[in-house]
Amino acid sequence: MDFVSVIERKKRGEELTNEEIRAFAGGAADGSVKDYQLAALLMAIRLNGMTDRETRDLTLAMAESGDMLDPDVGGVPVDKHSTGGVGDTTTLILAPLVAACGGKVLKMSGRGLGHTGGTIDKMESIPGMRVTMPEEEFVRTVREIGCCVVGQSAQLAPADKRLYALRDVTATVDSVPLIASSILSKKFASGARAIVLDVKTGSGALMPTEEDSIALAGAMVRIGALSGRKITAVISGMEEPLGSHVGNALEVKEAIDVLSRRCPEDLPLTRVALYLGAHMLTLSGVAKDLDCARAMLLEKLRDGSGLNKLREMIVRQGGDPRVCDDTALLGTAPVVREILCPADAYLCATDCTRLGYAAQRMGAGRASKEDVIDLRVGFVMKKRIGDFCRRGESLCAVHAADEASALRAEREILEALTFADEKCPPSRLIWDVVDENGVRRIGEDRQI
Amino acid sequence: MDFVSVIERKKRGEELTNEEIRAFAGGAADGSVKDYQLAALLMAIRLNGMTDRETRDLTLAMAESGDMLDPDVGGVPVDKHSTGGVGDTTTLILAPLVAACGGKVLKMSGRGLGHTGGTIDKMESIPGMRVTMPEEEFVRTVREIGCCVVGQSAQLAPADKRLYALRDVTATVDSVPLIASSILSKKFASGARAIVLDVKTGSGALMPTEEDSIALAGAMVRIGALSGRKITAVISGMEEPLGSHVGNALEVKEAIDVLSRRCPEDLPLTRVALYLGAHMLTLSGVAKDLDCARAMLLEKLRDGSGLNKLREMIVRQGGDPRVCDDTALLGTAPVVREILCPADAYLCATDCTRLGYAAQRMGAGRASKEDVIDLRVGFVMKKRIGDFCRRGESLCAVHAADEASALRAEREILEALTFADEKCPPSRLIWDVVDENGVRRIGEDRQI
Repeated sequence: MDFVSVIERKKRGEELTNEEIRAFAGGAADGSVKDYQLAALLMAIRLNGMTDRETRDLTLAMAESGDMLDPDVGGVPVDKHSTGGVGDTTTLILAPLVAACGGKVLKMSGRGLGHTGGTIDKMESIPGMRVTMPEEEFVRTVREIGCCVVGQSAQLAPADKRLYALRDVTATVDSVPLIASSILSKKFASGARAIVLDVKTGSGALMPTEEDSIALAGAMVRIGALSGRKITAVISGMEEPLGSHVGNALEVKEAIDVLSRRCPEDLPLTRVALYLGAHMLTLSGVAKDLDCARAMLLEKLRDGSGLNKLREMIVRQGGDPRVCDDTALLGTAPVVREILCPADAYLCATDCTRLGYAAQRMGAGRASKEDVIDLRVGFVMKKRIGDFCRRGESLCAVHAADEASALRAEREILEALTFADEKCPPSRLIWDVVDENGVRRIGEDRQI
Repeated sequence: MDFVSVIERKKRGEELTNEEIRAFAGGAADGSVKDYQLAALLMAIRLNGMTDRETRDLTLAMAESGDMLDPDVGGVPVDKHSTGGVGDTTTLILAPLVAACGGKVLKMSGRGLGHTGGTIDKMESIPGMRVTMPEEEFVRTVREIGCCVVGQSAQLAPADKRLYALRDVTATVDSVPLIASSILSKKFASGARAIVLDVKTGSGALMPTEEDSIALAGAMVRIGALSGRKITAVISGMEEPLGSHVGNALEVKEAIDVLSRRCPEDLPLTRVALYLGAHMLTLSGVAKDLDCARAMLLEKLRDGSGLNKLREMIVRQGGDPRVCDDTALLGTAPVVREILCPADAYLCATDCTRLGYAAQRMGAGRASKEDVIDLRVGFVMKKRIGDFCRRGESLCAVHAADEASALRAEREILEALTFADEKCPPSRLIWDVVDENGVRRIGEDRQI
């Protein structure tokens, strides 16, 4: 196939055939199409779009460009994917809880990127934890204990790997069909049949507006329907860090604190984790509806089964399960610096992307792929949007590698916060749910 | 500069700064910007366009990415550029005539591309002809005899060279700002201060419609005004080969035939050459208006000064001037095959691009850069659009390397011709003139 004619057609806004899309994905995977031709086509797709049929074809072609798992896990393989957030460690809470309820959580996760964290990095703060394992062992673990979380193998959707790297350096990240196919190709390849998507929206999200988030969510739900996978997308707020803890070991600690019931059940992180988990249980047919699913999850949280399941998963993955009883074993940063409230005022907004980058610059994330991250560092927010802050009261605790880094983080965190004299509402947690029936606006957080 | 942000801005349809455009052209020339980033930006420019200011900046930045000639030729350096045609050998007629009138024709020409021929290839059919020479000698030749035609040096607009090659393989050729800046960057770098553009329109042209041709012409005229160069663009027809001869030696022969007055003065090739030449003389201030310019050119054609000037130029460029008296010295193809009119009918249309490719496949042009061309081959059309053809009468003479090639060419040429029972009008020669005063439609060919 003459690849220039494929670019030419998309440039003119025409719909590509499945054969043309397979030439695109195949050529990306095997190197037969040059980077510059892929880049030109990516830009043409970014500017002229793709139909759902094209996006479905691209998703399947990218998934099939590498290994395709079709795992026997003794149930419907269910997965959850977040588009990336700050202090967003729902996976380590919901995977054990869903498994404790009988779900089969087969999860391949990514590493941190830009200002957002990655589950695989977080898990590495558990001493000994293996985040790669042979496929057979991965599937067996899910079958036997109900959950396993590992990193994506090099054989998973290699076409997506090449295109993803190119998009990053050609300003073609922000394309709904390209984001949707990138996310779903990896989920399809890893064998998930039921997928709950957590599409973040707000100042810390890839998609800053609700409208954009709904567009992305809708595209992914439709691709699922066209591909025989069940997909529900939840639009959730990322106007501030979801958990109070930001940083790798710190976020694992918070997840363990939640599962150990050292936090109130209405903690925003817990509420979102339970909400997403409830969708996973219903979508995979373990629970008959959301209310049942939620009751099941709460029971497993309250009776300690969730924490036990996490302990079991850690053992299977070679980690030290004592972290579940003593989170200090996750490692602690040498310098802890309290940031004090500068005045009597309400916290009314955060620039959540800046907060994420503040953590990244402390060493919690990578500026480039080769960077080694410091698992211990990060910060713990003591106030959420809507809270009153008394002057001199602790606003945040920075956990840093050294004093200089702590001071810089303090400055950056304060710059990312907006205070006001008037009381302001808390940030919304769950905004909308998008599934095959359409978009449902979730009016009140009390519903979840 | 972060080049991703440059791509990002153009992707969003924003206007790039001169600094950003210089980073683009400079990065293309020195290799510091990757092919895939250039490709993404080219596609964003193709789809979102560029303002005249941006196109001017890109033109100057590409021109200044290599050597810039500022030649003292004893007058206004004037050049002519065609967007590419079939049987379009006006340069070899007008350059000597304009020089004979006192103009200073400083011309760097290209080689054939796709279905269109290139002056440099044609000139190489003159035995001994040098198409490269040191810059100093090139300028001195123009100063002393009024014209010199050489190939573009590697140092001429290297940014354009890289982008041009990339556009060809990324489906980004058909962009007005990219075409305009590519053409003009080379003209500006070679030192031309007055430029006549011959924008071809019709079935054999890069821009098939008059509207597209006017858009390209207008853009180039405006870039000239913004850059202190005088530019006039002529939109001329390419519905059929301009001259009757197509092929390298054949076209040189036709140019010599014209200058030797072996052809009628109203031959379409002669009329277009005189029209373009008249604009060159007025634009460079040698003649006060088009009528005067035309009279001067006709005089130099009639008194043999044009042919003498060509002879002089050939001598200066190391070629054998005897070709001006005996065109057989240009070389002849071993096989000449007459194509006969298949029926009593009028020739009413040609697919001129297909005719060009028929010549290319005979060996007159290159399918890829590395191909060696056969200077002798091509064909001579005996009929023009509007002519009546009697069955069995000669329609075309194919000059081929062998019988097989001649037979294939015959088939391809016949397939590119459309006949009708009814009389049809001849093809239009000069369509419009675009200059700083706007677009002027040239209604009747008799005016030229």
